[in-house]
Amino acid sequence: MTGPRTELLLTGEELVTGKVVDSNGPFLAARLARMGLPCLRMTLVGDGGTEITAAAREALSRADLVIVSGGLGPTGDDVTRPALAEALQRPLTSPDPLPGHRPGTVPEGARQIDNPQGSAAGFWVDAGCVLVALPGVPWELEAMWPELESRIRSRFPDAVRFARTLRTVGRMEKELDGQVREALAGMYGVTWGVTANPLAVDLHLTANDAIALDEADARVRRAVGDAVYAEGDTSLAETVGILLRGKGWRVATAESCTGGGISAALTAVPGASDYVERAVVSYSNAAKVEALGVPEALIAEHGAVSEPVARAMAEGLLTRSHADITLSVTGIAGPTGGTAEKPVGTVFMAVAGPDGTFCRRFVHAGDRARFVVRTVNRGLDMLRHRITGGMASLERHFPPG
Amino acid sequence: MTGPRTELLLTGEELVTGKVVDSNGPFLAARLARMGLPCLRMTLVGDGGTEITAAAREALSRADLVIVSGGLGPTGDDVTRPALAEALQRPLTSPDPLPGHRPGTVPEGARQIDNPQGSAAGFWVDAGCVLVALPGVPWELEAMWPELESRIRSRFPDAVRFARTLRTVGRMEKELDGQVREALAGMYGVTWGVTANPLAVDLHLTANDAIALDEADARVRRAVGDAVYAEGDTSLAETVGILLRGKGWRVATAESCTGGGISAALTAVPGASDYVERAVVSYSNAAKVEALGVPEALIAEHGAVSEPVARAMAEGLLTRSHADITLSVTGIAGPTGGTAEKPVGTVFMAVAGPDGTFCRRFVHAGDRARFVVRTVNRGLDMLRHRITGGMASLERHFPPG
Repeated sequence: MTGPRTELLLTGEELVTGKVVDSNGPFLAARLARMGLPCLRMTLVGDGGTEITAAAREALSRADLVIVSGGLGPTGDDVTRPALAEALQRPLTSPDPLPGHRPGTVPEGARQIDNPQGSAAGFWVDAGCVLVALPGVPWELEAMWPELESRIRSRFPDAVRFARTLRTVGRMEKELDGQVREALAGMYGVTWGVTANPLAVDLHLTANDAIALDEADARVRRAVGDAVYAEGDTSLAETVGILLRGKGWRVATAESCTGGGISAALTAVPGASDYVERAVVSYSNAAKVEALGVPEALIAEHGAVSEPVARAMAEGLLTRSHADITLSVTGIAGPTGGTAEKPVGTVFMAVAGPDGTFCRRFVHAGDRARFVVRTVNRGLDMLRHRITGGMASLERHFPPG
Repeated sequence: MTGPRTELLLTGEELVTGKVVDSNGPFLAARLARMGLPCLRMTLVGDGGTEITAAAREALSRADLVIVSGGLGPTGDDVTRPALAEALQRPLTSPDPLPGHRPGTVPEGARQIDNPQGSAAGFWVDAGCVLVALPGVPWELEAMWPELESRIRSRFPDAVRFARTLRTVGRMEKELDGQVREALAGMYGVTWGVTANPLAVDLHLTANDAIALDEADARVRRAVGDAVYAEGDTSLAETVGILLRGKGWRVATAESCTGGGISAALTAVPGASDYVERAVVSYSNAAKVEALGVPEALIAEHGAVSEPVARAMAEGLLTRSHADITLSVTGIAGPTGGTAEKPVGTVFMAVAGPDGTFCRRFVHAGDRARFVVRTVNRGLDMLRHRITGGMASLERHFPPG
C-alpha cells in the first residue's frame, strides 16, 4: 500500500464508557477508503487532556495524516484544543473567527475549517504530518467532509483516487463478489470493496482517474445487471419512492411477519405521504379475513403462510384500497412456529397490480431481526422490479425454486 | 479513579475500513463500566500482524488489563495468536482443546476461555498485566462475557463493584439526571451513569456492595416513580408484551406518521403473535375513513392531525378488530407539512379500551427518524400505563399541556 499512513483519533468520554457507539470513525474510514487512503488505526479515548495529548503524540509519530474528532465545543469537557497544541508542541493562538462561527483557539499555524452545521470551526495543521481537528457531533463532522476531502486531495495529490458507490439488492455478498472480480479482471489500478447488509450489498469502486472509474462502473453494471438500484447514498426505499412518483402510482402493503416494517421503511422517506396509501398489518388470521378479505377456507386449507393466502392478501388490499400496486408478506419469523415443510424463515411474498399477481416463496435465514431486514429488502426489490419492468421483470428476477 | 487501567484492542480489517461499525468495544466498555472498571482507551487496527503486535505491546505497557477481540479463527486473516505471543514475548504452545472446541495455539502460560457459541476458545494470560483474547463475532464474544466477568472479579477483587441497570421511559435525560442526583446524594461509593435514547434513558447504578446497590435502587425508584419500566436488558416492547400477556389482552395500532413503527416494535419480540391482533397504517385520509371508520366530516373540520381524528382512529379500530386495547397516532413527521398552530413534530396519540378513550397532544422534536423513535416510545409507554393503571394512570402520567 502506497500513500500516506492515516490514523483517526476519536475523543469523548461517552465513547470509552460504551454509552455511545462511535460513528465518526466508521464514517471517516469509509470516506478515506473510497479515496484510496486506508486508515491503519483508530484510537478512542475519553475527555482527559493527558490521555488525548498522549494518544495524539503517538499517532503523529506514526502517521502522515491524523484526523481527530470531538472536544471543540465551549464546555469544560472540551479540552482537545490545548491537548493537540501540546502534542504538536505549538502555542495556542486566537485567529479571527470564520463568519458565523464562535471564536476559538487553535495551534499556531492552523487553518480553520468551516462548520456549516454548527458554531465550532475545525482546523488543519500541516506540521509535516497533517493534523485535522473536527467536532464530535456526527452531522456537523459529516457536513465538513466535502471541504476536508478537497484539502486532502490537494495535499496528497498522488495518493488519492476516484471513487463511486453502487448500491445493489437481491444478491448474496459472495455471488456479487465473484461477478465483480470477473468483470474487473485486468483493469489496472481499479479496486473495490463491499459493505454487506442482509440482501443489500454496496460496492465501493476506486480508480486512478475518472475514465477508468466509468469503465469499471460500466463493466460492473453489465455483469450484475439491474441488481444495482442506485448510486451514492440513495436508499432502496427512496429509490422505490422515486419510481412510484415517476409513474404517479400509490402503494399499499399487507404485512404479517414483518409487522409493518416495509411500510415503516417506505414512510421513513420525507414526502412518502404522496405515494404510500396505507398498510394493513394482519398479524391475526381474523385481520387477514376481515381487513383484507382473505377467505377463511383458504387459510384453513393452506395455512396462513402459503402462496394462496399471500396472493389473496395482495389482491384483497388492491380491491379495498386506492393503491395502484400492493405487496403482501406472510411468513415465519421464528424462533418458533416452523415445520418440516415450512421451516423458520419461510416467507411468501406477492405483488398485485393491474396486470395480475406475482408470488414467490423465499427462505430468509438468520435470527428474527435479520429475517425482517431481509424480507423488507426483498419486498422493496419486488416493488422496484414490478414498477420498472412489470410482471416480466418479476418473472426474470425471481425465478421459481 | 482507582482500580486497574483497562484498554481494549479491537482487530479486523472491516473495522478500520469503515465497512463494519465495531460493537464489541462498546459492549465490553459498557460491561466494564458497570463493574466499576473504566476503559481508558480503545484501539482499532486491521488484520496485519505487525500492526496488532505494535498496538498490543503499547497497550500492555500502559494498562493492567487489555482485552483483545478478533482474529482467533482458522483462516489466513486470523493472525492474532502469533501477534499477541510476540507482543508478550512468549512462545506459542498447543494446549489440549476445551471439549467441543477446535485446537488452537495460545501464548505460553495462557488459560483457555470457553466459547459457548462458537468453536474458537478465547484465552487469558496473566503476565502482571492481564491480556485476554476473545473472538470477533459479537454473539460469541457476548456469550463469553459471564465467564470473563467472573475471572476479572477474582483477579481484581478490590476494584470491581456491584451494578444494575434500570430502564426508564418518558423522562428527558436532564430531568432524570437531576432527580437521580438528589436521590443518591450522600450515598458513599454509589455512582451512576445514563445511556439516553429519544425519550428512553437507561440508568446504570454501581455500588461497593449488594446492600448499597439495593438501597440506591430503592431511592431511585422512589424518586422517579414508575418511569422505571424494567431492569437489565428487557426492552420496552417486551415489557408491554409481558403486561398484555398477564391480562390476556390483545392490542391493535392505528398509525399514520409512524408508518407501522409501533407495530414493528411490538412484533419484533418473539411470540408477539399471541397478543398483537393487527395494525392499520392509515397514511392516506381515505384509509382513515375506510379502514378505521373515521367520519370524513371530522377530518374536513379538524384536519387529519387532530384530537378528534386520533380518538376516532383508536375507537374505530377497537370496534373493527378483536383487540382489547388500541393505540392511534396521527402527526406531522416533517420536514414539511407543519403550520404555526401545528408545527412539525406535533402528534396526537389516543388509547382506547373498555373504559374509554384517552388522548393527548405531544410535540416531539428532532428530525424525521428521531420523531418516529420518540413517538414509538411514547406510544408503548401509553400502552404500559393503560395496562397497569387504567385511565387514571394515563391521566396522572400524561398531564395536559
